[in-house]
Amino acid sequence: MAEYFAGMEAGGTKFVCAIGDSSGQILAEERFPTTYPQETIDRSISFFLNKKTDWDIQLTSLGIGCFGPIDLDRSSSSYGHITSTPKPGWVNANIVGPLSEALHVPIAFDTDVNAAALGELKWGAGVNLENFIYFTIGTGIGGGAIINGKPLHGLIHPEMGHIFLNPNPDDTYKGKCPYHRNCFEGLASGPAISERWNTSPQSIPTDHPAWDMEADYIAQAMSSLICSFSPQKIILGGGVMKQYHLFPKVQRLTQVYLNSYVQSDLIINHIDDYIVPPRLGDQAGVKGALALALDLDR
Amino acid sequence: MAEYFAGMEAGGTKFVCAIGDSSGQILAEERFPTTYPQETIDRSISFFLNKKTDWDIQLTSLGIGCFGPIDLDRSSSSYGHITSTPKPGWVNANIVGPLSEALHVPIAFDTDVNAAALGELKWGAGVNLENFIYFTIGTGIGGGAIINGKPLHGLIHPEMGHIFLNPNPDDTYKGKCPYHRNCFEGLASGPAISERWNTSPQSIPTDHPAWDMEADYIAQAMSSLICSFSPQKIILGGGVMKQYHLFPKVQRLTQVYLNSYVQSDLIINHIDDYIVPPRLGDQAGVKGALALALDLDR
Repeated sequence: MAEYFAGMEAGGTKFVCAIGDSSGQILAEERFPTTYPQETIDRSISFFLNKKTDWDIQLTSLGIGCFGPIDLDRSSSSYGHITSTPKPGWVNANIVGPLSEALHVPIAFDTDVNAAALGELKWGAGVNLENFIYFTIGTGIGGGAIINGKPLHGLIHPEMGHIFLNPNPDDTYKGKCPYHRNCFEGLASGPAISERWNTSPQSIPTDHPAWDMEADYIAQAMSSLICSFSPQKIILGGGVMKQYHLFPKVQRLTQVYLNSYVQSDLIINHIDDYIVPPRLGDQAGVKGALALALDLDR
Repeated sequence: MAEYFAGMEAGGTKFVCAIGDSSGQILAEERFPTTYPQETIDRSISFFLNKKTDWDIQLTSLGIGCFGPIDLDRSSSSYGHITSTPKPGWVNANIVGPLSEALHVPIAFDTDVNAAALGELKWGAGVNLENFIYFTIGTGIGGGAIINGKPLHGLIHPEMGHIFLNPNPDDTYKGKCPYHRNCFEGLASGPAISERWNTSPQSIPTDHPAWDMEADYIAQAMSSLICSFSPQKIILGGGVMKQYHLFPKVQRLTQVYLNSYVQSDLIINHIDDYIVPPRLGDQAGVKGALALALDLDR
């Protein structure tokens, strides 16, 4: 009998819900904007319940890749909640609870970026790798890491968007992050670009200096993360990275920052194979959520 | 029959050679300054050969924790060598080769900081932890990581001393690292302190502003690394951290930098249990090298 798995990418901009099979193929999918917790979670629940009824199927498990910070400690009273997010309305939002009550299935819960990294490990740019990093650069900035083939959690979970960067001397913008001056998310997220240049990133032409500054911040972050993790690859997804002209700039500037200190042929001579877009494209997040559900079943 | 293991901490300042048993107890140890490769390695070989003869024993294996960057790829022609170090005379130095030829034992080779982390995992401040970071802050700055109970290697190995920091606006010093402006090692290593203040760190009084600046740089690095790895603990060793008055300053400033974004009771309320000195003290490096030798045997 075919098994059906549920995946939910709970992003800061949009939610993506999907039902897939054990090979990761998506059989049905719905995308909608992230408004407020009750409305957005209710809409997710309706999607899954309707599909169960319409198709007359059972769901084996649900994987949720969620924007954060989130509580992953199953012994904690706030397990499955978002914690200290700057996103209005979502502080302490319970994500796992209402889905568990409505669907009665085992739930795997992880960060959106760890989920996306897992999806890329199974079916995308991370196949056959043991150690790599996945970043989303969009409304927020977050990084997930696969280490020895598994998502990294540690004490809570990484918050790679909040590493500190050196502000460009020409940059008078004070940063978007309410917690930190000069962190990666504060200087380089989509909203930071909008606020700094007083226009939407989509409307900024590709030859505008905004993109040189953006590439510089991303490259600075990549250099520090390469020195921290020594990853075999870095995958850059998210809305901002849809500006594909950023890739060659980020690749070149990362080489400039590292200055040949890390003696890797891959980084020095083939960086276009090293800092890459997600192979799963827009489906990295939701396929990652499906991957979480599949892993729970094994 | 008792087994004997050899450990060698090949540091940028000193080498420590030891013979130990399977419980990690050190039975004989010798320390000498790091001069030039042939002289220093010959002295290490003599130590091991003399002990073998004097005690009439066989060595089961040798673990080497080495300053870097080093080549850990067993399929590479420069496996077991130091690669691009700024240390004069040691570029491309072959470490494993001469020891292997002289001693005829299996050799485990890793970074000095991964070895020290492994030693702390087995017998020190990392017992019962799955994910933590060990730093040495001394002649150079390096970090090793234990992830899911194992040393992290990745593409090559981490070089955490080369993450970028924000220079203090009052700091006119240009940095000691020949590869990077503004990296952690360039701004905060022992030689950087010496050059910035034009005196040896040991002679700087504890109430001198040099230590506030040093603590600030270390705390900045710790904040970025906590956001990157979400470690369960950070162990800070090395010559500079013998200035134990730095610990409370680093702990407090790390909290200031993180600004309660990472919602961990341990970090917010018990940071003196979170950023700690090595429990193995001066023996972290050489006991770590023994731990490498022991792991090879299993």
